[in-house]
Amino acid sequence: MSGLQGSDPSRSLAWGEFGVSGKQNVKFEIIAQDGKARGGRVETGHGSFDTPVFMPVGTQATVKAVTHEQLKELGAHIILGNAYHLALRPGDALIAEFGGLHKFMAWDRAILTDSGGFQVFSLARMAKITDEGAAFQSHIDGSRVFITPERSIEIQERLGADIMMALDECVGYPCEKERAAEAMRRSVAWAERCLTARKREDCALFAITQGGVHADLRKECSEALARMPFDGYALGGLSVGEEWARTAEVLALSDEILPREKPRYLMGVGLPENILDAVEMGVDMFDCVLPTRNARNGEAFTRAGRIKIRNEKYKRDESPLEDGCDCYACRNFSRAYLRHLFVADEILGLTLMTQHNLRFYMRLMEGIRSAIRAGTFAQFKAGLRLEP
Amino acid sequence: MSGLQGSDPSRSLAWGEFGVSGKQNVKFEIIAQDGKARGGRVETGHGSFDTPVFMPVGTQATVKAVTHEQLKELGAHIILGNAYHLALRPGDALIAEFGGLHKFMAWDRAILTDSGGFQVFSLARMAKITDEGAAFQSHIDGSRVFITPERSIEIQERLGADIMMALDECVGYPCEKERAAEAMRRSVAWAERCLTARKREDCALFAITQGGVHADLRKECSEALARMPFDGYALGGLSVGEEWARTAEVLALSDEILPREKPRYLMGVGLPENILDAVEMGVDMFDCVLPTRNARNGEAFTRAGRIKIRNEKYKRDESPLEDGCDCYACRNFSRAYLRHLFVADEILGLTLMTQHNLRFYMRLMEGIRSAIRAGTFAQFKAGLRLEP
Repeated sequence: MSGLQGSDPSRSLAWGEFGVSGKQNVKFEIIAQDGKARGGRVETGHGSFDTPVFMPVGTQATVKAVTHEQLKELGAHIILGNAYHLALRPGDALIAEFGGLHKFMAWDRAILTDSGGFQVFSLARMAKITDEGAAFQSHIDGSRVFITPERSIEIQERLGADIMMALDECVGYPCEKERAAEAMRRSVAWAERCLTARKREDCALFAITQGGVHADLRKECSEALARMPFDGYALGGLSVGEEWARTAEVLALSDEILPREKPRYLMGVGLPENILDAVEMGVDMFDCVLPTRNARNGEAFTRAGRIKIRNEKYKRDESPLEDGCDCYACRNFSRAYLRHLFVADEILGLTLMTQHNLRFYMRLMEGIRSAIRAGTFAQFKAGLRLEP
Repeated sequence: MSGLQGSDPSRSLAWGEFGVSGKQNVKFEIIAQDGKARGGRVETGHGSFDTPVFMPVGTQATVKAVTHEQLKELGAHIILGNAYHLALRPGDALIAEFGGLHKFMAWDRAILTDSGGFQVFSLARMAKITDEGAAFQSHIDGSRVFITPERSIEIQERLGADIMMALDECVGYPCEKERAAEAMRRSVAWAERCLTARKREDCALFAITQGGVHADLRKECSEALARMPFDGYALGGLSVGEEWARTAEVLALSDEILPREKPRYLMGVGLPENILDAVEMGVDMFDCVLPTRNARNGEAFTRAGRIKIRNEKYKRDESPLEDGCDCYACRNFSRAYLRHLFVADEILGLTLMTQHNLRFYMRLMEGIRSAIRAGTFAQFKAGLRLEP
């Protein structure tokens, strides 16, 4: 199995060495620049989306509690799927029989799939990671699973993701530097193996930098990956408990290293205020479960602060979740009605709250994109009072 | 408290004796007749609906798992609410503050509310029923609640239902004749008190006949209620375990007694084949939790029989739930995808399945109405093979 181990990440690579040579699998165009903030557009085989973009999380081939029709009305042009979950259930082979994830779930817009690296870290039981890959127990039935970079690409190509992510090894925070270094170097080796394993020209592949919040490790990782012909670059292993200031430092150093002409994706982030900061530092793509998960827990995002809708004080509140919001929930329903739905454990509450929170994020991103194109991002950010 | 007890149900009543004298609170027009089957239209203060009609159940001010927008797309022009549930949570006084149930839940089409009689029988704990009313423990928090005919009307008028139901006493099946007679006579007395208690002219009031499957009791009840100026007549206390043939007997005798110019509503029924039989015997209105509840349990109605979507055999099934169905689920998704959603416990599965089942019922009723208007109901019924 040693032949499957990664090669030296510091070696400079020519595009021709990889499975798919030099083809651009997503087209990224920067349309406007405002400071470091970039306004762009990504074209995929399933339509284009404007950046900076927020991608709703659809782990198990559905964004929880909303229909695809509702997702489109909310303004979603790309959603996330998850190689880890989908390989376990219903299985990537089955999805391939249907012609891929788009057809299986009947979603005709873009899909990005995560590689499974983060899920091995966060969900899998008894994970044992070697240079070869990660062995773990399925969180569903406890069965033993082994995932390698090659297997992750196989899964994601079977799913037919418009954007695939390289398999990486995540570590927590805080993390000993030696452990972080090991995981980072393994992630680089795995990324290279992903490039080599890749067969489909229509599936773009993004690398994921690791190295925790250790500047030198993150730098080494970013430089190694930047030399390889990925279609985009993600920052991984963040948003795992560290303070935002540490993440911001990582963003600043990454901006210096990662190729400017490729999309940049900050994984798992997150809070509206963090998205604003990250956009300001040149990030183009975001995903997070916050809007959908908090919705199902009865928490709404509004510019005036978050609302815990089960609270007694909303019992007689005739106002919408957020004044001026154009989502289906805010156009039609009062906080009192939403509170009733949550207190009475009604599914409609989950759906309406999810619609609102996703629309809140979509409107935030629309505002960000407009401001960048107008060259007024700094004012937009300063003027946006986002109460916690 | 004896003053609150009902008067002699056998006494003949003039309209002027009641709170709302002689006003027609819903307008019912019979447009077509085919045998005993009637094709009609009911006009309410919140739009009209064609009969025979199936009313989706929205017990707690929401039809479970679908939005109002989806309900309208499915073709629902009237839904059910429940006085019992809504009085307990969020409270009829609160809903009244919002201007009634239509405004509280933002549903601008017609609403019929059940009186609470059936829920006292089916849901309430420690129910103690006297001529005065029903005392019971709330199924939510165990608190003691007392409901009288006057209170039921107060609740329903506060909700502002387009059609209110008189409070009745339900008995199970089988039931001793003496017990059934007592409940029937009490229901008649309560119905009369409901008429007297009624204040709002814009809320129609339907009586509910009782008497179980005892022909003489049901006859006595129907005759007594038919003498009172109700806006419509419902058959209650059925669909509680008895064979369909017994229900059919009750329908036949009721048809002879209940005023033909008023809508007739068979409560809690139910199975498509029973709806067809009941339409044939002159019933205009139906409600049942079957389509919505079975949907959430993973069971789809189709003309080729019911589908338990979790079944392994649908794992690779690319066909829609039902060929030729025009619902959102069938237009877009495969059985395999729906199965995946149920196996993975995804909310979208509940929503899609509910949409399909409700649309199945709506299409059935559309077919019934067209056939009656074309004078071909018998052929329609005979030609419709509904596999169990």
